[in-house]
Amino acid sequence: MKNTFGQSVAVTLFGESHGEYIGAVLDGLAPGLVIDEAFIRHQLSLRRPQGKISTARVEADEFHIVSGVFNGKTTGTPLCILIPNTNIRSGDYTPNIPRPGHADYTAECKYHGYQDARGGGHFSGRITAALVAAGAIAISILRQNGILIGTHISRISDICDRTFHSYESDIETLADLAFPVLDSSKADMMRACIEDAASEGDSVGGILETAIIGLPAGVGEPWFDTVEGMLSHALFSIPAIKGVEFGTGFGMADLRGSQANDAFRMENGRVVTTTNHNGGVNGGITNGMPVVFRCAVKPTPSIFQEQESVDLAKGENTTLNLSGRHDPAIIHRARVVVDSVAALVLCDLLALRFGTDFPK
Amino acid sequence: MKNTFGQSVAVTLFGESHGEYIGAVLDGLAPGLVIDEAFIRHQLSLRRPQGKISTARVEADEFHIVSGVFNGKTTGTPLCILIPNTNIRSGDYTPNIPRPGHADYTAECKYHGYQDARGGGHFSGRITAALVAAGAIAISILRQNGILIGTHISRISDICDRTFHSYESDIETLADLAFPVLDSSKADMMRACIEDAASEGDSVGGILETAIIGLPAGVGEPWFDTVEGMLSHALFSIPAIKGVEFGTGFGMADLRGSQANDAFRMENGRVVTTTNHNGGVNGGITNGMPVVFRCAVKPTPSIFQEQESVDLAKGENTTLNLSGRHDPAIIHRARVVVDSVAALVLCDLLALRFGTDFPK
Amino acid sequence: MKNTFGQSVAVTLFGESHGEYIGAVLDGLAPGLVIDEAFIRHQLSLRRPQGKISTARVEADEFHIVSGVFNGKTTGTPLCILIPNTNIRSGDYTPNIPRPGHADYTAECKYHGYQDARGGGHFSGRITAALVAAGAIAISILRQNGILIGTHISRISDICDRTFHSYESDIETLADLAFPVLDSSKADMMRACIEDAASEGDSVGGILETAIIGLPAGVGEPWFDTVEGMLSHALFSIPAIKGVEFGTGFGMADLRGSQANDAFRMENGRVVTTTNHNGGVNGGITNGMPVVFRCAVKPTPSIFQEQESVDLAKGENTTLNLSGRHDPAIIHRARVVVDSVAALVLCDLLALRFGTDFPK
Amino acid sequence: MKNTFGQSVAVTLFGESHGEYIGAVLDGLAPGLVIDEAFIRHQLSLRRPQGKISTARVEADEFHIVSGVFNGKTTGTPLCILIPNTNIRSGDYTPNIPRPGHADYTAECKYHGYQDARGGGHFSGRITAALVAAGAIAISILRQNGILIGTHISRISDICDRTFHSYESDIETLADLAFPVLDSSKADMMRACIEDAASEGDSVGGILETAIIGLPAGVGEPWFDTVEGMLSHALFSIPAIKGVEFGTGFGMADLRGSQANDAFRMENGRVVTTTNHNGGVNGGITNGMPVVFRCAVKPTPSIFQEQESVDLAKGENTTLNLSGRHDPAIIHRARVVVDSVAALVLCDLLALRFGTDFPK
Repeated sequence: MKNTFGQSVAVTLFGESHGEYIGAVLDGLAPGLVIDEAFIRHQLSLRRPQGKISTARVEADEFHIVSGVFNGKTTGTPLCILIPNTNIRSGDYTPNIPRPGHADYTAECKYHGYQDARGGGHFSGRITAALVAAGAIAISILRQNGILIGTHISRISDICDRTFHSYESDIETLADLAFPVLDSSKADMMRACIEDAASEGDSVGGILETAIIGLPAGVGEPWFDTVEGMLSHALFSIPAIKGVEFGTGFGMADLRGSQANDAFRMENGRVVTTTNHNGGVNGGITNGMPVVFRCAVKPTPSIFQEQESVDLAKGENTTLNLSGRHDPAIIHRARVVVDSVAALVLCDLLALRFGTDFPK
Repeated sequence: MKNTFGQSVAVTLFGESHGEYIGAVLDGLAPGLVIDEAFIRHQLSLRRPQGKISTARVEADEFHIVSGVFNGKTTGTPLCILIPNTNIRSGDYTPNIPRPGHADYTAECKYHGYQDARGGGHFSGRITAALVAAGAIAISILRQNGILIGTHISRISDICDRTFHSYESDIETLADLAFPVLDSSKADMMRACIEDAASEGDSVGGILETAIIGLPAGVGEPWFDTVEGMLSHALFSIPAIKGVEFGTGFGMADLRGSQANDAFRMENGRVVTTTNHNGGVNGGITNGMPVVFRCAVKPTPSIFQEQESVDLAKGENTTLNLSGRHDPAIIHRARVVVDSVAALVLCDLLALRFGTDFPK
Repeated sequence: MKNTFGQSVAVTLFGESHGEYIGAVLDGLAPGLVIDEAFIRHQLSLRRPQGKISTARVEADEFHIVSGVFNGKTTGTPLCILIPNTNIRSGDYTPNIPRPGHADYTAECKYHGYQDARGGGHFSGRITAALVAAGAIAISILRQNGILIGTHISRISDICDRTFHSYESDIETLADLAFPVLDSSKADMMRACIEDAASEGDSVGGILETAIIGLPAGVGEPWFDTVEGMLSHALFSIPAIKGVEFGTGFGMADLRGSQANDAFRMENGRVVTTTNHNGGVNGGITNGMPVVFRCAVKPTPSIFQEQESVDLAKGENTTLNLSGRHDPAIIHRARVVVDSVAALVLCDLLALRFGTDFPK
Repeated sequence: MKNTFGQSVAVTLFGESHGEYIGAVLDGLAPGLVIDEAFIRHQLSLRRPQGKISTARVEADEFHIVSGVFNGKTTGTPLCILIPNTNIRSGDYTPNIPRPGHADYTAECKYHGYQDARGGGHFSGRITAALVAAGAIAISILRQNGILIGTHISRISDICDRTFHSYESDIETLADLAFPVLDSSKADMMRACIEDAASEGDSVGGILETAIIGLPAGVGEPWFDTVEGMLSHALFSIPAIKGVEFGTGFGMADLRGSQANDAFRMENGRVVTTTNHNGGVNGGITNGMPVVFRCAVKPTPSIFQEQESVDLAKGENTTLNLSGRHDPAIIHRARVVVDSVAALVLCDLLALRFGTDFPK
C-alpha cells in the first residue's frame, strides 16, 4: 500500500523536501476526539533542529488541518494536515552523483530519473514532520485512554543513558526534553560527542529506547499482525533506522530460558510479570506489561568529508564533496518520530481490536 | 489481515498444534512455475527435531498440495498445502497455569478461554511447518530467477560463527546443513552448549544471520512498505524472534558516518558499494547489494525447572513444573523458517514491482 | 488480494473443480461462537443440484473443519473447511476451444495455458460450495446477533415472484425452500420454464432479491467501503452475476426525488423510513431499515446447442458441441451463494465497526 | 480501508463541503507520466453546475498539485491535489432534521453528532471534485496506453439515448459534451425533463452507460478482485449510485444461454466475440472486448417540496422545507465522476497485473 499504513486507523504521507507542502491524511479516528493544536506544535518543536548539533535549515513548521476537525474535535472523517515548505535552497544538490548511505541511487533505480531529487525529495527526513503532526494527534488520543509513550536516547557511541526506572515519571520527564536523556549528566556528554563529530565534518548514530504503558492485554495477532511486526513495519520507514528489538532483544542470545522467561505473579488482582524480557508482548499479543523496544539509528549519511561515489550519467567513479545544510546527528530529532509512528500503529491496533469508536 | 501476509503474493496460515491439519494457502504465484516436491521435503527435514538438541516429538511432515498445481506446475490460482498432525499427546498441558515466556496468557486475554490450548494451539511452533512448505516453493521460484537465500547461526551464548565470506558458496553450503554453521568447528561447540543447557532442564537462544543475493535494485517503497519493514513485519511472526536488524544494525551506534556510509563504485559497468553497512537497502529500496539481516532468537520458554506462575482459574500465585516434549534450542530449526518467510516476502515485493507474471 | 476478501473477518478460497479438495479459510471470527454443522450441511444441500433442472453431477459435499474450532466453538483463529471432490469425470472438456460465455478464454489470457482447465478449474461454480460452507457459519453468527438474511428468485424470464411482504416470516420461509420462491404458484411456472429451456439444450437466467434485517444503523463508510460497495465487490465474484442494485436500483431512473426519497418517521422511539427506495443504505451507511438488493444472474453458459468458437491452438474459427453435465439454470442454486457472500461481508463490516469480539 | 481505494495505484480522499480544502492523494503512479493540467481543468469543468439544470453554487475549482509532480511529470511518489472551497453559505442547513434520501441521519448514527454537517460535510457531492481531478490524471495515463473511457446519459425518465455505435468516435464525441448524450435530439428532451422537474421543486434520476476500449485481455482476478467487483466497489461510492450492471446486466433475465453467450471468432489474428452481452469480462477477467457497464443514478434527494422527517434532538416527527442551492439532476455532472472512478480502478488493476512501471 506504499505511502499508506494502517488498516482501521491509517496514515497516508505525501510531499517532497522542496515541494510546496508536505502532509499527511489520518483516517479512521473515532469522532469527538479533542485536537490539541498546542501539543502538535510542541511535538513539531521537538523535531526541529537544535543549534550546533543540527542542520542550519530551520522550518517554522506551521501546520494547517484542512479537514476532519470541526469545532476543535475530530469528525471521524479523514483529517488532512498540511505543512508548507518555506526554507528551501535548491542549489545544494548534485543529483547525478549519489550520496553514499542515502537513497539517491535507489530512487534512481526505482523512479528512472523522474524523482524530485532536490533535498532528498520524498525520501527526505523532512517528510517526518508530517508523521510527527499526525502522530501528535495519535499520542493525544492514547493519553486520553491512559496510554503513555516515551523515548530516550539509550546510547550514542559508548555513552549510555540509564534505562527506564519508573515508567510513568520517566515518560513525563522525557515529554518536554528537547534532548531526551534520562540521566542529565549523560546528555552533555552525548552533545559533546555530536559536536566533536561535527567539528570533523562527520556524524554519529545511536540507539533509541521506547516504552509504552497502559496498553490493555490481548491486543495484536498471533501471526503476521503481531504487535512487534506491526510496529517494526512502520518504524523501519523512519530514515536511518536499521534495527528494531523488543524487550531484551538481541541480548536474548546471552540468556538461558530460566533467565529470559518472565515469571507471572498476581498483583492487586491483576496478572503481571516479575521481569519484562519479552517487552510486554507474548505470541505477538500484549500481556499488559510495558511494551519496550529499541531502534538502531545509523549516523547521518550527509557528511562533509570527501567520499567515493559514481557519476551515474557518465558511468564512472568520482568523488563527492557535500556542501549544504546537514545534521551531524538526527537521533535526538528522530525520537519524536519514533513516538509518533508507534502511537499511530497502536491507534490502529486498538481500533481493529475494539472497533472504530475506539480509541476515544 | 491477521493470518494472511502479502499483497500480490500472499500466504494464509491455519491450524493448531493438535488439530487434524495445519496448512497454508499461497496465492498470487505466477503460472507455470515448476513445483519441486523433493525440495519441499528437504526443507521440512531441516525444520524437524534433531536428536538430543531437540524435542522428542517428531512429525513425519507428510504434505499434500491440494490445489493450485497441475501437471507439476503452478496454475496461478491459490495453492493449498495440508500437513497432517499425527504425533499428538494431548495430556501434556495444564491450560490454567500459563507458561512463562509463552503465549498461554495472552491467548487467554484475546480469545477469552476459547483457544485450543493443546500444545500451544495456533501459537505453536508447529504451525511453522506450513510456512516452511510454502516458503520452499517461494525459495525455488527465487532460485529460478537467480535469487539465493541462506541463513546461519551467527551466535549462541558466546560462541560466534564467522560471517558470510563468499555469499554464493556459503549459501550453497548452508542449504544442506541440518545445523547451519559456516565454521564447522563452532558447530560442535554450539551443540555442546545446547546439550549442556538441556542437561540442566534449561534452554538457549541465539542470533541468526541471513543473506539474500541476486535481487534487482529498485524493489521496495520509500515509506511503510520498505524492504526492511516488509521483512521485519513477517519475521516477527516467527515464534521466539525478538529483534531484527539490517546490515550493521545496532552496531551503527558505534560508527561515525564516515565509517557507516557505503561508498559507491563502478564494477563491470554496474554500480556497487565497497562496504555493505546498510545491508543492501537504502531508503527502503534494494540497491543491488546482498540484503543482509540478523534475527534475535530467544531461549525456548519451555524449560524443565520449576517456574513461578499464576493459576488463572483461582487468581492466585502457583508454581509450574513442565513435563512433555520440548526443545532446549530452536534456533537451528528456526533457520529454515526465516529463509521461508523472507522468500515469501520477496516474492510479494517482486510481484508488486514487476507484475503477476513475476517472479517466474 | 485476489482470492481473499475481508479486512477484519476474511475468507480465502482455494481449489479447482477436479482437484482433490476445494476449501476456504475463514479468519477473524470472534472466539466462542457455536458451530452448527447440521446447518452447514443444510446450506450445502440448498446449493446441490436438483433433478431435471440441474446438472447430473451431484457431490456429497462432505466437509471437514480442520482448524479454528475446539469443543464445538470457534477459537478465534483461522477456521479451515475442506470439501473433497469425488464425482469427477475429466474427459468432458476440450480446453483448446473456449466455451462462449465462460472463463476458458480469459483464463488462457491470464494463466498462459497453465490453468487447470478441467471442469472450469478454479473458475468453476464448484468453488462456491466452499463459500457456502464458510457463509453458513457467517449466517449462523449473524442470526445469533438478531440479523437475518434471505434471498428468493424474483424473476425468471417473464415469470415474477412477489417481493418481500413480511421480511421476517418471508426469510424464515425461504430458509428451507430448495427452490426459493415466495409465491409457490410461481415456483412451478419457473421450474417449467427451466425444463423447457433444458429440453432444447438451452438455459435461462433471472434475478435474485435479497433482504437483510436486524442490522444496526451506522455500519459502513462514506467513501469506497460503503455497504453497497463492499457487498457488490464480493457478490460479483459469484459466477454468472452481472448486475447488483440496491433498493429501487435501476428503477430510480423512473422516479422523481419526491417519490424516491424515503421519509423519516419516529416509530416506537426509533427512527424509521416510510418507504425503502434506498435499500437500507444512505451515504454508504446502514440506516437500520432492511438492506435490500437484487442480483442479475445470466443464463448458464454451458448449453447443448452448437456454438461458434475458435481453436486457440490453431488460431482459427470452429464450432463447439458440448457434452458433459451442466445446469440449464443455476439461479436457484446461486441463491444460497448470495446469502453466504452477503453474510461474510456483513460479519466483516460489523467486526470493523465494533471490534474483533463482534459479531459474537 | 475507508477513504482509500486501490492496492497498487491508490486514491485517498479528504475534505468536507464547507472546509478549507477538499483533496485527494494519488499514490502508486508510474514515474515519468506527463501531467496535463489543462485536461484536469477540462474534466472539472464537466462536473461544474450548468445553468438552470444545476445548483446555483458554482465553484472555481482551482486545483493545486502540491507533491508528486516534478518538471510536469509524475515522480512516482504520492501526488496530492488540493481544491479550495470558496463559495460557501453555511446558514443553509438544519442539522437536527435529516433530509430524506441523504446521509444526514446515517452520519449521525456513525459519527455521534461530531460530523461536520454543513453542506453534507464529507458526504457531499462536492468531494467528487477531488475524485475528478485525480481521475483526470488516470484518464490521461490510460489514453497514453491506448485505453479510452466514455460515459453518456443512457436514460432519464422515459427518454433514452442511443447506445454506443462506434466506440472510439462516440467516446471522442462525449469527451467535450457538457451534457453527454450521443443522440443530440434527445439531449434537449432530457434537459427539458430536468427543467420541468425543477420547476416543480422536484428532481430526476437516470442511467449512465460507460464504455472502456483498448484494455488488454487477462486483467482481473477470478474471485473477489474481479473487474466487475473492483469497479462496482468504487462506483458505489459515488453519491446517488444505486445500481451497477455489466454488459446486458439485468437484461440477462430475459435471455436464454443461446442468446446471451458471446460467440468467439478470429478477427485479424485476434480473438474477439461477435456480441458483448458479458460486457468485456468473463470469469472476472477482461477478454479484450469493450468493458461496458451502466450505473443507476437516483434523483437528487434535495428537493423544494415539503417532506416528512424527524427532529433528532426532540425525537419527534416534523416536516422539512429545504432552502439553499441544489441540483434538480446530477446525472450529467456524475458522468465525469464515473469516468474518473473507473479510470482510477483500471490503473490499479493494470499496475497489479503488469507492475509499478505500468501504466506508463
